[in-house]
Amino acid sequence: QTVSPKPSRLGLCAACHGETGVAVMPGAPNLAGQRLDYLRAALKHYRDGSRDVPVMRAAIGPLSDAELDAVARWYSVQIPAAAKL
Amino acid sequence: QTVSPKPSRLGLCAACHGETGVAVMPGAPNLAGQRLDYLRAALKHYRDGSRDVPVMRAAIGPLSDAELDAVARWYSVQIPAAAKL
Repeated sequence: QTVSPKPSRLGLCAACHGETGVAVMPGAPNLAGQRLDYLRAALKHYRDGSRDVPVMRAAIGPLSDAELDAVARWYSVQIPAAAKL
Repeated sequence: QTVSPKPSRLGLCAACHGETGVAVMPGAPNLAGQRLDYLRAALKHYRDGSRDVPVMRAAIGPLSDAELDAVARWYSVQIPAAAKL
């Protein structure tokens, strides 16, 4: 289990997905332990509009690719057990 | 933790997402413990094409709404810890 530093832009994501990927907003998915390839693809699709979710496009807009990737990596290594137990 | 019966159409989903929601195919997300409201919305969007993922549209096509909902409920109650530990 890699211990990643907390990404600088995590707060924006955490408002709905939680700091550890346990969603705190109805409609928002849990991200803890999600597969990195899936997270990266989802972010790409939100950015290019092929997943047309305005709140996600707005949230992603100001982040650089490197910042987005740091957030994706962060969530992918969180322990999902915390989501249910 | 609700013990749900295994949905009759689970096999189709499990080929990529695993029987317990731990994905077995690159690009497919883990679904174990995912929020039910998110899963239901995702299935709706795959069916109506607003999430344009041909393999998902094809997989969902033959399933009734009730069958889809049974699968969503199944995955939402799986323990996600198994995904990482």
